Amino acid sequence: MPFQYLEHYNGTTGLTVGVNKVLFSEQTPYQKVEVFETDTWGNLMTIDGMVMLSEKDEFVYHEMIAHVACFSHPNPKRVLIIGGGDGGTAREVLKHPSVEHVDMVEIDEAVVRASKLHMPGVGDFDNPKLHVLYENGLTFVDHVDQKYDVIIIDGSDPVGPAVDLFKQEFYDKCRDALTEDGVLTGQTESPWVHGYHESIQSVFRSVDNAFSHSRMYLAFIPLYPTGMWSMVYASKGIDPLSQEVKDRVAKGMQTFGQHLRYYNVEIHTAAFALPGFVKDIIS
Amino acid sequence: MPFQYLEHYNGTTGLTVGVNKVLFSEQTPYQKVEVFETDTWGNLMTIDGMVMLSEKDEFVYHEMIAHVACFSHPNPKRVLIIGGGDGGTAREVLKHPSVEHVDMVEIDEAVVRASKLHMPGVGDFDNPKLHVLYENGLTFVDHVDQKYDVIIIDGSDPVGPAVDLFKQEFYDKCRDALTEDGVLTGQTESPWVHGYHESIQSVFRSVDNAFSHSRMYLAFIPLYPTGMWSMVYASKGIDPLSQEVKDRVAKGMQTFGQHLRYYNVEIHTAAFALPGFVKDIIS
Repeated sequence: MPFQYLEHYNGTTGLTVGVNKVLFSEQTPYQKVEVFETDTWGNLMTIDGMVMLSEKDEFVYHEMIAHVACFSHPNPKRVLIIGGGDGGTAREVLKHPSVEHVDMVEIDEAVVRASKLHMPGVGDFDNPKLHVLYENGLTFVDHVDQKYDVIIIDGSDPVGPAVDLFKQEFYDKCRDALTEDGVLTGQTESPWVHGYHESIQSVFRSVDNAFSHSRMYLAFIPLYPTGMWSMVYASKGIDPLSQEVKDRVAKGMQTFGQHLRYYNVEIHTAAFALPGFVKDIIS
Repeated sequence: MPFQYLEHYNGTTGLTVGVNKVLFSEQTPYQKVEVFETDTWGNLMTIDGMVMLSEKDEFVYHEMIAHVACFSHPNPKRVLIIGGGDGGTAREVLKHPSVEHVDMVEIDEAVVRASKLHMPGVGDFDNPKLHVLYENGLTFVDHVDQKYDVIIIDGSDPVGPAVDLFKQEFYDKCRDALTEDGVLTGQTESPWVHGYHESIQSVFRSVDNAFSHSRMYLAFIPLYPTGMWSMVYASKGIDPLSQEVKDRVAKGMQTFGQHLRYYNVEIHTAAFALPGFVKDIIS
C-alpha cells in the first residue's frame, strides 16, 4: 500500500482509504482534481482532497440526486445539471425515456477528462442527448433563455468554485430558469459536519424564499463524511410526497427502475423522513 | 493531539479520530475496553479497537434499537437487554412508562464501569427498575424461566464474545424467552462492510426461521463504519408497520417522544425502507 488517502472533517475526524496508485493529479485553474486506484472502492476521485465519488459507491449519490427530481416531474424533457462533471448524474437522468435534452454545465473540463479516462463506467458521454458546456454555473443560469423542467445542482463542497451554489442569488436564478412545474434537487452536505451548517441553512432559507415546495432528504453515502448526506428538493408546483408522484415512481420501477441499486418506491418517501436533530438545523 | 485513533474496515478503509487523552484502558478476560477523550465527539468507547459509542452520537443507536421495539409492543413491561453495558439502551427503554423491569445481561463488568466513570450521561444505572447481571447472554436465555415482552440484542461486532449473538441457536432461545406478542431488536452491522455479510445473513435466516415477522431496518450512525447501520426486528405477533403501531408511536411522540433527537413517527416507518443492494444481501 503506497499511501493512505485521508480526508478530515469535524476537527480531527477523518476518512482514510488505502491507495495503490495515483492515476490522475492536476492542479486546474479552479481546484486540484485527483483519481486514485484503491483496493476496495475501485477508482476514487477527489477534488481539493475531498472525496467526490468512487466507482463502487457512486450509484447511491447519482440515483438519489437524479431520480427524486426526474420522477417528481410528470414529464421531464429538458434537464440542466450544474456541475456533475463525472457524468454519473447525467447517466441516471438519461434513463428517463421522456428526457430529450440534457445540458451539463461543468466549470472544470479536467473533471470530465479524469472521469472519461479513469471511471469509464460512470458517464454516458456518447449519448447524443447530452450537451457538455464548460462554464460557470451561476453565469449560465443568469443568461440562459430556454427553460428547464429539472435542474440538478451537483456541485462540490461549499469551498472553492462551488461556493456560489449555496447562495440565495443562485436559487432565485434557478427558479427563473425552471418551467412552471419545474423541479430542482441539489447536494447540501452532511448534517453532522458542523462547519457546513451555515451553508445548509443558507440553501434552505434560499429555497424557502424562492419556491412553494422545499424539503430536505437524506441518503447513506459511505465515503462522504459521516455517511449521512443531505439533499435539497424544491419546486414551484410539485409536492414530491403527493400520491401522484408516488404512483409515477411505482410505474417507473416496473421499467428501468428494477435495475437501480438504491432508489426505489419506499426509498423515495423514506428519504424525506428527518431525525429531530436534522430538522433543528434547518428550522 | 497526542495520537489518532484508527479503526479499519473493508481492507484499508478506516475511520480516524483525534484523541486528546486515554481515560480508560483495560484488557478484560473477554476483550480490550478503552475510553478516549476526543476533540469533537466527547468521550468515545472502543472494544477491541472498534467504536462502540461516543457521547455525541450515541443517541442515534440507542433510540433506534430501543424505541422501534418498545413502541411496536402494545404494553412492554419486562425487557431483557443482552449486552448494552454502556447503559444507553436501558436509559431509552426506561423512558417508556409501561416498563416495570429491565434485565441487562452484560458479559463484561468493565464496560459498565468504564461507562459509569467516563460517560456519566449515557446510563441510568440508579434507576430501581434496572437490574444489571454479569453473565453470558446465550447461557442466560437458555436458563431464564420468566418471559419478556421485549428483548434487545445490543452486542458488539461478530468477533470475540459477541459471536454467539449472530447464530440460529441464540435466536431460537430468544423466541422461547419472549411472550406471545414479544418483540426483538438487535444490531446487525453495516451492509457496506463485506466481511460481515455472512453474519448479517445468518441473523436474518435465523429470525426468518424463528419468527413470523422479521425485517431489517437502518440508521445513520456517523462513527460506525460507512455510517449505514442495520438492525433486525423480529416478532411472533406484531408487524412494526401496522397502523396500530404507527398510531402508538404518534401517541408516544406527544409525551416523552418530543425530547428524542433521532427517532420519530416518520423515522419509525422510513427506517424499514431498504435500498435494492441491501435487500440483495438478505434475500
